Amino acid sequence: MLFFTQCFGAVLDLIHLRFQHYKAKRVFSAAGQLVCVVNPTHSLKYAPTRCAAAQASPEQGILPPCHHHETVHDPQLVPCTCPLFSCPWEGHLEVVVSHLRQTHRINILQGAEIVFLATDMHLPAPTDWIIMHSCLGHQFLLVLRKQEKYEGHPQFFATMMLIGTPTQANNFTYRLELNRNQRRLKWEATPRSILECVDSVISDGDCLVLNTSLAQLFSDNGSLAIGIAITTSKVHSSEAEM
Amino acid sequence: MLFFTQCFGAVLDLIHLRFQHYKAKRVFSAAGQLVCVVNPTHSLKYAPTRCAAAQASPEQGILPPCHHHETVHDPQLVPCTCPLFSCPWEGHLEVVVSHLRQTHRINILQGAEIVFLATDMHLPAPTDWIIMHSCLGHQFLLVLRKQEKYEGHPQFFATMMLIGTPTQANNFTYRLELNRNQRRLKWEATPRSILECVDSVISDGDCLVLNTSLAQLFSDNGSLAIGIAITTSKVHSSEAEM
Repeated sequence: MLFFTQCFGAVLDLIHLRFQHYKAKRVFSAAGQLVCVVNPTHSLKYAPTRCAAAQASPEQGILPPCHHHETVHDPQLVPCTCPLFSCPWEGHLEVVVSHLRQTHRINILQGAEIVFLATDMHLPAPTDWIIMHSCLGHQFLLVLRKQEKYEGHPQFFATMMLIGTPTQANNFTYRLELNRNQRRLKWEATPRSILECVDSVISDGDCLVLNTSLAQLFSDNGSLAIGIAITTSKVHSSEAEM
Repeated sequence: MLFFTQCFGAVLDLIHLRFQHYKAKRVFSAAGQLVCVVNPTHSLKYAPTRCAAAQASPEQGILPPCHHHETVHDPQLVPCTCPLFSCPWEGHLEVVVSHLRQTHRINILQGAEIVFLATDMHLPAPTDWIIMHSCLGHQFLLVLRKQEKYEGHPQFFATMMLIGTPTQANNFTYRLELNRNQRRLKWEATPRSILECVDSVISDGDCLVLNTSLAQLFSDNGSLAIGIAITTSKVHSSEAEM
């Protein structure tokens, strides 16, 4: 009888652990929003970044520059836009998502509103938290980066990029929201195209910027929850048509 | 006849100039919000700040420390809380507003929602833009400061302080909003009491923080418009009662 009790206990433990694991990956908050736990990745690149290298030595032609903008009229080969690694991959814009999923194992989430829960915020810079977000018929890349712009003073930078052209990106608005400890911080902007370099967006500071003390105020047990919402922006699309 | 025409023209010019001057001080935006133009004041103090000085040498007792918190149970004399100058004034909390108005000539505005239009954002740090805001039966002090936390990299810090005790401050929520160039940044928090030091709030970074490039994106012709709204926070007041 004791044996059966122990077996039953072990099975219960396994179910509990499995549930905990599942919960850690995708949980629904009280408000019914999908919460996605995103683990950090210590970044190996940065100095010099691919953008900087491309801008510094365009004549070498080893890698095409990241900053394509609207100059790419025809579907061209684009370099891997994953901000994590200096990846030699090149391909059409349409296959960037599958490359990021398969090669860089970046998760993709569905839904107009999700919560991005970045863990281990205490890890030293440079560190990235990255996820893809599929909604409104498009895929977006959310990048949270811990970086030391000023030595000894790490900051957090969060931005959203459309895996598409800048013209397509103009049709959307994304919102990042932090809410904790009687404080709320909201950032709304047009997503940048992934054809523009995420490094330059962050170095320009044209994104949600948090200093360490604010990040701590918004964190819970070393994890930072960022609410994400994407909407279509009719004003922007009419501007783009003009 | 020519003389009369010229006189009439001169009068019209004068009326126009007077109107322009009036418009520059207090104008109503299209949304019916009161817009207040706030000119910068180059700050003369900062190193060492009064807080730092008081903390470094409490035994000297020249000035009481800024950080009173709830230890002031009886109405005590408080030092001048104007963040601009090292002012030797001391007085009761109830007369701080009249001191700030009369001695430091800080304007006071009425209304639950106003727009704070800070001019000449290009001026070098340290610079302050300060105004008082009267609503919901209380007075608040809004401070926008340009400061170099990291040498050569000026940042903008905006916070709201209640001219009252920390317990009274817990009953309110303030919101600062920037909206321009397809970007929107909102900061919501409980105001800090003016008995706490504005310098420490800013050095902790527990306020709206803008780097120079973001401030430029939100600025129009060198002026930064910050929408301000104050509400009572029932959750906070119930927490304070607990």
